[in-house]
Amino acid sequence: MATVKLVEENTTNPKVRAIFEDIKATKKIDRVPNIWRALATNPDHLELCWTRLKAIMQPGKIDLLTKEIIALAVSVTNGCTYCINSHTAAVKKLGLDNEALGEVLAVVGLYNAMNRLADAYQIEPDIVPNPE
Amino acid sequence: MATVKLVEENTTNPKVRAIFEDIKATKKIDRVPNIWRALATNPDHLELCWTRLKAIMQPGKIDLLTKEIIALAVSVTNGCTYCINSHTAAVKKLGLDNEALGEVLAVVGLYNAMNRLADAYQIEPDIVPNPE
Amino acid sequence: MATVKLVEENTTNPKVRAIFEDIKATKKIDRVPNIWRALATNPDHLELCWTRLKAIMQPGKIDLLTKEIIALAVSVTNGCTYCINSHTAAVKKLGLDNEALGEVLAVVGLYNAMNRLADAYQIEPDIVPNPE
Amino acid sequence: MATVKLVEENTTNPKVRAIFEDIKATKKIDRVPNIWRALATNPDHLELCWTRLKAIMQPGKIDLLTKEIIALAVSVTNGCTYCINSHTAAVKKLGLDNEALGEVLAVVGLYNAMNRLADAYQIEPDIVPNPE
Amino acid sequence: MATVKLVEENTTNPKVRAIFEDIKATKKIDRVPNIWRALATNPDHLELCWTRLKAIMQPGKIDLLTKEIIALAVSVTNGCTYCINSHTAAVKKLGLDNEALGEVLAVVGLYNAMNRLADAYQIEPDIVPNPE
Amino acid sequence: MATVKLVEENTTNPKVRAIFEDIKATKKIDRVPNIWRALATNPDHLELCWTRLKAIMQPGKIDLLTKEIIALAVSVTNGCTYCINSHTAAVKKLGLDNEALGEVLAVVGLYNAMNRLADAYQIEPDIVPNPE
Repeated sequence: MATVKLVEENTTNPKVRAIFEDIKATKKIDRVPNIWRALATNPDHLELCWTRLKAIMQPGKIDLLTKEIIALAVSVTNGCTYCINSHTAAVKKLGLDNEALGEVLAVVGLYNAMNRLADAYQIEPDIVPNPE
Repeated sequence: MATVKLVEENTTNPKVRAIFEDIKATKKIDRVPNIWRALATNPDHLELCWTRLKAIMQPGKIDLLTKEIIALAVSVTNGCTYCINSHTAAVKKLGLDNEALGEVLAVVGLYNAMNRLADAYQIEPDIVPNPE
Repeated sequence: MATVKLVEENTTNPKVRAIFEDIKATKKIDRVPNIWRALATNPDHLELCWTRLKAIMQPGKIDLLTKEIIALAVSVTNGCTYCINSHTAAVKKLGLDNEALGEVLAVVGLYNAMNRLADAYQIEPDIVPNPE
Repeated sequence: MATVKLVEENTTNPKVRAIFEDIKATKKIDRVPNIWRALATNPDHLELCWTRLKAIMQPGKIDLLTKEIIALAVSVTNGCTYCINSHTAAVKKLGLDNEALGEVLAVVGLYNAMNRLADAYQIEPDIVPNPE
Repeated sequence: MATVKLVEENTTNPKVRAIFEDIKATKKIDRVPNIWRALATNPDHLELCWTRLKAIMQPGKIDLLTKEIIALAVSVTNGCTYCINSHTAAVKKLGLDNEALGEVLAVVGLYNAMNRLADAYQIEPDIVPNPE
Repeated sequence: MATVKLVEENTTNPKVRAIFEDIKATKKIDRVPNIWRALATNPDHLELCWTRLKAIMQPGKIDLLTKEIIALAVSVTNGCTYCINSHTAAVKKLGLDNEALGEVLAVVGLYNAMNRLADAYQIEPDIVPNPE
């Protein structure tokens, strides 16, 4: 159960209401996901989160499916239940089937293991990276 | 400094030597990265790690650049210095410039924030996911 | 469901019973929270945890509300459901309203993002810190 | 060594330059910290990060020292070297001495332990939280 | 609820079926645990995970109980509910009672605290480790 | 470089001095490890940490080598450099050779992968655990 009372979609707060409308229009959905209704308990923070997410989660040099795959990889590594559900749904909607999802998760699992092994042996970098 | 003495490339252990050759041939590089030389202190574990990585890190339903981007996203979320260096070099070699790298990291940063906010508010999933 | 049977409040173990009484008296509550009833399956560990928490979670150079805010920030960053519930209740009881809670979580979210970006770019410290 | 070439302070990019000036003016410092010079390799992301941080890290219902303490608690829990250095310097500048720093870290250490114990025993919340 | 439909034990996929049989025979259990039924949505990944786990989780220089204790320590530190349940059951089956489990978890809790304190103070290693 | 000035071994603070002596006597070493010299900047916290560690890290139902292996598994999973060095040295001193160390780390790597896969698929526990 959420630790704050979720703000109702028909709230009279004009700032929150405008953001709720923008979320639904941008995501082409007809109800506001719970995360935004919780964040709306602090309207300024809601605005910062939404404007930032909206700016980042649009196609650029990296396409949207790849961005959702990154979001899923991060959410799995952090073990965030809500986010795993949300981004699994998103990658499926964008065309990934369960076998391809398995390939994504295979990479996530592999590097969660390899990261710890590299740390464990205190491996120094092989080469000076080229920062250009 | 590594916590074990890295195994020399010209080791006389035939199992290790064969894997070292396979690593260099597969990755088209002329020296064995330090991580494999550390893992070689336990040849069975070296083999398990290498055969798994080789099987997973080839193009399938997900292309290789996307897989390296996932590897980088995981490594950044775990804060593994060696792996961040290695996968940053890999994505650059596969064509990502610094601006595109910035886009990848923007998504990684964003969801490291959003994951914690979803946890913080104990948000319940919006919908029952469709497992099909 | 807990992985051990929670120890009953009216246990006959005198060491556990004394600690349970001290927990209730110190926290001014009339039942023992579940975490302590689980830890009581190993009375020595219960004692170590309780005496340490009691010593640390009292006002000193840092006041109690700030300490509970730190506890919440840590619990959110680690994604611990039980602890998030417990420390959210504590900061609210000490006077934080939902908008102020939103401000706390904004900082938690922000630095979970910035931490990973600093790691991702392998940023070196700007200055030698002054350890005095 | 950073994985990208840090953008020079006297860059000719007008967007980056304006942000660099704002960072120095806001923080009352005379050089741009390395993290911002790395983020500047993607000017849009630089802007998103800086405007968000500037909005969040000002006094509100929560004072600035408490916000820096939260930033430190998060950075320590995530093990981010750059950020630990930076926020330790910040809390000291705002008046915390080493003994008070020790009190902050005592709480951070304590709940990193307690979080895992609560997870380990799969403790269920004691009470339904009051979301109001 | 799982994000994929769990593969039925009586699946007609011969590769998956053979692995399911091997899992039950190796673990001396009469039904396939849910994790393997989820992984089976990508049969190649199922095979990689199972062969690797089977090779590692047998007695070697380290006995099986110690290996299960390590698995529990890792799962608790990562906060993985499914894995904590599974490995707690495993260590109990191998003879650990609740008091001994408390001792294991005391060490896990202690070093989750000490790790963060060492990071917080940016402690440098005391001595050059002996890699031999 | 440490973020606080390490307290000298010949400090005139009697509480710190007594603990330093106890650390050296208990661990049979002739200098105080850096972590304790940093913690000594807050003598009360130094005492809480040392008395807790001393109580936990002695043989009980779990032997000392197993406890050090758990400490290493936790430190690797958290990526704490100082602690990895320290506990790798400890397990080697207690008799583990590099091949056995590889076996320990194989289990640590394996479950860092499996934990994330179980989280990714949102697997529900197979059975209700027996808490007795």
